[in-house]
Amino acid sequence: MDNPLSSLRALVFDAYGTLFDVHSVVKLCDELWPGKGPLLSQLWRAKQLEYTWLRSLMRRYQDFSQVTEAALAYACASLGLALDDARRRRLLGAYRELATFPEVREALAALKASKLRLAILSNGSPAMLRPLVAHASLGRSISTVLSVDAKKIYKPAPAVYRLAVEKLRVPKSAIGFVSSNCWDACGARAFGFRTFWINRTGAPVDALGVAPDHVIRGLNELPGLIRAAVS
Amino acid sequence: MDNPLSSLRALVFDAYGTLFDVHSVVKLCDELWPGKGPLLSQLWRAKQLEYTWLRSLMRRYQDFSQVTEAALAYACASLGLALDDARRRRLLGAYRELATFPEVREALAALKASKLRLAILSNGSPAMLRPLVAHASLGRSISTVLSVDAKKIYKPAPAVYRLAVEKLRVPKSAIGFVSSNCWDACGARAFGFRTFWINRTGAPVDALGVAPDHVIRGLNELPGLIRAAVS
Repeated sequence: MDNPLSSLRALVFDAYGTLFDVHSVVKLCDELWPGKGPLLSQLWRAKQLEYTWLRSLMRRYQDFSQVTEAALAYACASLGLALDDARRRRLLGAYRELATFPEVREALAALKASKLRLAILSNGSPAMLRPLVAHASLGRSISTVLSVDAKKIYKPAPAVYRLAVEKLRVPKSAIGFVSSNCWDACGARAFGFRTFWINRTGAPVDALGVAPDHVIRGLNELPGLIRAAVS
Repeated sequence: MDNPLSSLRALVFDAYGTLFDVHSVVKLCDELWPGKGPLLSQLWRAKQLEYTWLRSLMRRYQDFSQVTEAALAYACASLGLALDDARRRRLLGAYRELATFPEVREALAALKASKLRLAILSNGSPAMLRPLVAHASLGRSISTVLSVDAKKIYKPAPAVYRLAVEKLRVPKSAIGFVSSNCWDACGARAFGFRTFWINRTGAPVDALGVAPDHVIRGLNELPGLIRAAVS
């Protein structure tokens, strides 16, 4: 029986949390408010996602840079931390220079050598993604960067995943989708992609009635899976 | 100038977290897993809401009893708590007998005396809401119980709030909407209701670009606001 991965023609990656570590801002958070870094970073991220879902359902899309700033303001207010202009600018600036996870660069280079087309499909706005990808020098591996901004709705709305089909001109059955956000992998699976959930933390799979096709512990496991399929 | 509350003809209440304390299950959680009650209850509720938003965006509606059960399973797995059938049945049973907040009964009786029509508009399925309302004996105050199940999508989708307009046959400008969930009050405000956010915990207002019209600390403050408007 053919390995279903052998029919893949493109790999599409989530950005925040998958290639880029959103919690790499913890250090700066902790520098600004000693002892509060991990808690602030977690609440900021949780509210950021919550606001993308709520605004999508309310049909009041606002781009990810604005949602990220609103979530930061809420998180600071909730924790009683005074957010002045200088601190806000530094924290939002850090979000444009997030670190990649340690295995990302090497894994992407190996995947590029496999001749699959590599793309990013992210909640981030184009103005956020450009400096992020440039700062991490991922432009050589990843040729296409797609933003939900083109659809004015956030993941996991099917319209977002459809954007990859439209822009890459590859049928959804030939697209592998990679995310560390389990709900994103589930959303992509429900849409019809073959999905890889990077479960770096050993979390349970989300109970959304649809599960990722493959679970890996880091992006470094993906080149081997792909090689085994095409050889 | 007329008080805008004087034009209200109906008050529509959220159920979970607003009339009924979702964290009244803490005691049972803590009995089943000593020391874990608060954490389990919080994670269960957070995942329950998250799954309503995700499933709505994925267009994979599943009723609230199933979502509540899935969220419980995730929360237990995440905390490493063994959820057997007996424990699951007891916890889901407790969800049909949640306690009301202490001020609820008296406040609803006072509001009913104001001649406004009182209704519930809830994420809960009809099969969950019926025993819940009966257990708390709220049927005498509240004449209409509406479930999102009629629309197969969850709050804060506008279709949900529209259900109240359709079923009560009252224009949205004459409906006051009451929720302790700030995002729900914001969603209802965006739809066009006059909204009351019950902020029992002193939380910051959610940064969703639309704010509740009124902020009160408990339901007991509402009858006074209404009386002041109509007198």
